[in-house]
Formats: sequence, structure tokens, C-alpha cells
Amino acid sequence: MSYKKQSLDLHRKRKGKIEIKPKVPLRTRKDLSLAYTPGVAEVCRAIEQDKEQSWQLTNRANTVAIVSDGSAVLGLGRTGPEAGMPVMEGKSVIFKKFANIDAYPLCINSSGVEDIISFCRSIEPSVGGINLEDISSPSCFEVLEILERELTVPVFHDDQDGTAIVTLAALINACRVTGRKIEDLKVVMNGAGAAGIAIARLLLRYGVKDIRVLDRTGLLSPEREGLNKFKREIALQTNKEKLKGRLEEALPGTDVLIGVSEGGIATKDMIRSMNPEPIVFAMANPTPEIWPKKAKEAGAVIVGTGRSDYSNQINNALVFPGIFRGLLDSRVRKVTPEMKIEAAWALAHVLDNPSKNRILPRVTDRSVVDAIASRIKRKNGKY
Amino acid sequence: MSYKKQSLDLHRKRKGKIEIKPKVPLRTRKDLSLAYTPGVAEVCRAIEQDKEQSWQLTNRANTVAIVSDGSAVLGLGRTGPEAGMPVMEGKSVIFKKFANIDAYPLCINSSGVEDIISFCRSIEPSVGGINLEDISSPSCFEVLEILERELTVPVFHDDQDGTAIVTLAALINACRVTGRKIEDLKVVMNGAGAAGIAIARLLLRYGVKDIRVLDRTGLLSPEREGLNKFKREIALQTNKEKLKGRLEEALPGTDVLIGVSEGGIATKDMIRSMNPEPIVFAMANPTPEIWPKKAKEAGAVIVGTGRSDYSNQINNALVFPGIFRGLLDSRVRKVTPEMKIEAAWALAHVLDNPSKNRILPRVTDRSVVDAIASRIKRKNGKY
Repeated sequence: MSYKKQSLDLHRKRKGKIEIKPKVPLRTRKDLSLAYTPGVAEVCRAIEQDKEQSWQLTNRANTVAIVSDGSAVLGLGRTGPEAGMPVMEGKSVIFKKFANIDAYPLCINSSGVEDIISFCRSIEPSVGGINLEDISSPSCFEVLEILERELTVPVFHDDQDGTAIVTLAALINACRVTGRKIEDLKVVMNGAGAAGIAIARLLLRYGVKDIRVLDRTGLLSPEREGLNKFKREIALQTNKEKLKGRLEEALPGTDVLIGVSEGGIATKDMIRSMNPEPIVFAMANPTPEIWPKKAKEAGAVIVGTGRSDYSNQINNALVFPGIFRGLLDSRVRKVTPEMKIEAAWALAHVLDNPSKNRILPRVTDRSVVDAIASRIKRKNGKY
Repeated sequence: MSYKKQSLDLHRKRKGKIEIKPKVPLRTRKDLSLAYTPGVAEVCRAIEQDKEQSWQLTNRANTVAIVSDGSAVLGLGRTGPEAGMPVMEGKSVIFKKFANIDAYPLCINSSGVEDIISFCRSIEPSVGGINLEDISSPSCFEVLEILERELTVPVFHDDQDGTAIVTLAALINACRVTGRKIEDLKVVMNGAGAAGIAIARLLLRYGVKDIRVLDRTGLLSPEREGLNKFKREIALQTNKEKLKGRLEEALPGTDVLIGVSEGGIATKDMIRSMNPEPIVFAMANPTPEIWPKKAKEAGAVIVGTGRSDYSNQINNALVFPGIFRGLLDSRVRKVTPEMKIEAAWALAHVLDNPSKNRILPRVTDRSVVDAIASRIKRKNGKY
């Protein structure tokens, strides 16, 4: 039976993937009077007098809302909110199993940025953090900027920062394995959507000096007209030679190709045009920009993809459970670039001895969450 | 140790009352590939092609959002959303334990009717129904009217219709016990907020001909100026004698006092001014309009309150689990007055032999949910 069929069957049989579980008994009249009226009134009063108490007396401190408008679901595009739910329920399962976090999957009807923002504003008092998910670019940047400014709980857009953190971790370890310095790398970033922009921002912040970023039209540069403000911001800090053209013009003489774009768009010849022993992260899903076998034949020394059936899976499920565990436990209000770098570093160093075919731990590795969360917690005083 | 202290301790120890529980395993790479990427993509595609599939392939068909703005929490008033959470978590526990429904407690920041409506519009694709809760009057009426018109999932405001249904059930059984006809009763309804208006509407619909409704100012009548449209609508159908005045002017010569107002405002003399052997439902919480002992001394034949520590507790926890179980199982899109009457009738007839001190089953009686739900399901074809 195919994977597709098995997955459909699983979902149909279980009717979804999560349920609610009470943490208190409710057998007797007394149970009811403590968990509900009249006893609960005292708990409400305590929070009314001191809102802070909502972090101790309700499940808020362990609750995350996974919010999506269904505008960019997986690689499927604008599927609508109903069709986004299986992904969000899947994330909820991962949150619980790996980080013991209770996450509500909430796919919403929305007609744009303002609706998503107002939904998140509304839900703030009920949750300890918000995980934005599968929201199309460039809306996702605006939404995140405004929410980070306004809300008192942390907001994390997994497609941006989850992807950026896991990619940086993979690059850190690719450098450990190959004995290179990340600051010296020439990096081509193919894709300038949520993930591409966020990866570029984080690499720049980390100290990578030479990046070339491409969208569907080609290389970003300040001369190009019609760039949105997020691409423009990146264009001003990248592509110093002011190259024009597409992927084949961008790759010659570079060390790293990071693809968060389209399946199959990179060729062996393109990889051969790069510097010797290039690093290739072909993360388009389900079909990578170039298949690992071909990339290696063309000289790539380390190849990663988004897929679980190849070595070096670069997947943000390695990141979001640990990040939120750390954020919730430390009551962090905003995720800073420094925290993202710490998280990437912690993730990379879960492996004492990374190797060419093992630059990242597995998603099912239970030590990952602790490593990231404790790093966020330890460093929290600084932020 | 006092109830208050015990309840606070319970909440602090457990850090709230609910958590998420996955329904699928997540131990292996294969588990992950079925519950999450890449397998989940097929499930998303199936729903994208046919939205109806969200009822089979996600937990939607068993999910309810409990939505409150914290503007009228219990008897505490406008506590704000954070302080409403303990109540909503309590309802979530009741939903799960009694009806196996997964309910998300969502207390929201809101600046009025439009915010609540837009939040519920947003969340519709993720849930099978919406339970509005503790929203102040008259906003709650507007919110419910608009949402019932617009949404494709059922919306139920428990403070209105849950209270109305349980009150009608109590009155049906009080009549069975005392051999009276409900249509012949003269009823005084003290309180014209969410509960009072909804009870009056349902009793009128059921066939009660003579009702007098009072708000804080006194008896409603069409002559009174400044009534909101919901009170005016009720005023036009009640108080046929066009009486003026307060509770003491309203009660003489009537058979039933229903109080959803303020603790302690009814006196023995007022009860004595009613017809012989009156029925008194003093449902203000935590202090009833008149204590049962005093009401009985003044001649009341049946007395009910909202409290669990007296006989005849009239509590909407008897209603909402069964109502939603029925609504979800039958994919009902709108709760009609006929359904509310059916639910009240079913609840009343859980007891084969009601008696003066047992006009309703206990909240912990497991047969209640089935009785209401199966009635809703059986009758669904008609609605």
C-alpha cells in the first residue's frame, strides 16, 4: 500500500489526529464544584485581580495556537483553511509528543493581513505563544512584524524562522565536517519567499558576507524594479557584484546552494560550475531542486533535502518544538535573531561528530528539544 | 479546607484543567511521514478538492470552540478574558467527560460585537460548532443573530439557550409533579439579560401565555422608554395587564418565579403574595434570590437554585454537552426553537418519576447526554 493511501487511511480511521484530555477528575458532585461552579469563581477572581495568575492557574503557560490562513500549505499553495488542518494537527501531535506542549490547530477564514493580525490579537489572552504557519509571502512578513511589536506573547512563523534555524544548523555542521569557515562561504539562496528571505536574513546576521538571492525572476539586486520591501531590504545587503540573471548565472564560483524553490530546477552542469566540493541543500518538497545522487555525481560533498527518505533531512520539525518549549518555560516575549542563532548552534551541536551523511540529528531524536529549549532558557537573561 | 481554597489549589497544582492528546503514534520515521510530511500532503489535497472531507479526515467533526470575551463571567461581571479561562477550561472538561467532545477554551480580547463576530467567522473552518459563553447582554443577542445567519456550523450561546432549556425542563417537571398545565401558569421572570430574555422567548414559544418580565428598573412594558430592541420585543409579548413596578408589584397572583437576577432580592412576603403553592426557581449565583428554606416557609411547593449543594440544581451543564453531541453527530447547521424544546423535553423525561425535591437529574448522571443528543439526532430530519 502506498504512503499516500496509508496516510489517507490513517486520517480517515482516526478522524483526525488530536483530542482533548482533562487533567482533573469529574466523577462526583464535589469534583464538579471544584473544577467548575462554584469553586472556579475563586480562581477567576484571583486572575481578575492579577492577570499574571493566568500563567499559573490555567493551561495558558503550556498552550500554543498554530494559526494558518491556508494560503501556502506545504508545497500545495493556497488550499484554503480546511485543507490546511491536517498539517496543523500534525504539528500539534509533534508539539505534544516531542515537547509536551498543547497546541491548538486553528486554520482561519481570512481575507488578508489584517484578518490574521486581528485573529492573533484576539486569541492572545488564551495562549502562551503563537506559531504562524503556511501563510503566503509577503503577507507573512507584515503579519509577523506587527504581531511581534504588539503582542506580549512570542510569535514565531515556522516557515520563516523554523526553516532559517534548521538551515543555519545544517550549514554550521556542513562546515564542521568540511573544515570550512561559514563566514567565508559564498552562498546562493534560490527562493525569496517566506523561507528564502528568512534564511538570508539569518545568514547575514550570522556573519555570512557573500550571498546571492534569487526569486522566480532571477537574481535580486537593488537595480531591479518592482521588488517588495522585504526583497529590497535583502537586495541591498546581497549580490555585491550586482550580477543579473538566473540560477546558472548565479552559481559559478560559489560554495553553497540553498534551494527553497522548485523541484528539478538545478542541473548537474550548474553544480559543476560551483567551487570544488560544494554544499547543496535542495529543500523543495516533495521533489528537490536536484536529486542527491545527481548532485553528488556533479561533485557536491554534502547534500541535504527536505525528505525523510534521504540522509540529511533538513526539516523545521527539528526546531519548533524545542523553540517553543524554551520560549514558554522562560516566558520570552519576543524571539530575537540572537535566540535563533543560539537555537541553530544548539541543534547543530546535538551531534558530537557530524558527518557528510549525518549533518543533523533525526526529527525523532528526543535530545533535540532539550538541547534547543535549554539553550533558550539559559540565554534568556541576556535577551 | 474551604471550597475556595481547594479549588485554587487544584488549579495551581495541575496548571489548568486540559491538555492535548495525540490520537496517532509518533515513534518512528514512518509514523512521522504518515501523520506529517510527506504523507499528509495527500490528505490536504483530498480536502482541497472536497471541503466536506474535513469532517472525515480531521478532528473537526468532534471539535467545538468555546468563545468568550470575558464580559460577563459567571456572576462576576466583566472580568476580562484571562479571568474567564478557568470557566472555559471547566466547560471543556465537562464537554470531554460527559460527551466526548473536544472543546478549545478561547477567551478573546475584544472591543465589542464586531470583534467577537469576526473571530468566530475566522475560526469556522477549524470547528464543528461554536459555544458562545459569558458574553454580556445585549451584545450577546446581536452576536448570536448574526453568526446564526452567516455561519455554516451551529452557534449556541449557553448563557441564553442552555439556561432557557434547563429552565424549561425544570418547569415541565415541576408541572408533572404538581399536576399543573404549563400553558396555564402565570410566570414572573426576574432578569432581562442573556438568560432572562432567552427563557422568556422559549417559554412563549412553548405556549406559556402569561409572563411578566422585569429588569433592574422594573417590569418591562411597551410603554417604557429606552428599552433595547431585545427587551422591547419581549415587552410586546408579555405583561398584558401593562403593570408597572418592581418585583413586589409583579408577583401577586402568579404561579412561578424564575430569578436570574440578584442574590437576596426576594422576600418571604413576596412569595406569600403569589398564588398558593408557587414554584420558585431562584437561580442567581452564588446567592439565590431567596434561600430554599425561606421560600418553602413562605409556601413554595417546589424550589430550585443554581447551586449543587441544594436539591433541584438548575444548571446548564445539564444541557450543553448533550446539545452539542447531537448537533455534531447530525451536522445540524442551526439550533432552532423546536430543537430547544425537544432538548428540554428529553432532559425532563430522563426522570420517570420526578418529585418535589428531584425535578432534574444530576449533572453527573451519564444518561442525560444520550437522552438529549439522541432526541436532537432523531428529530434532525424535521429541522
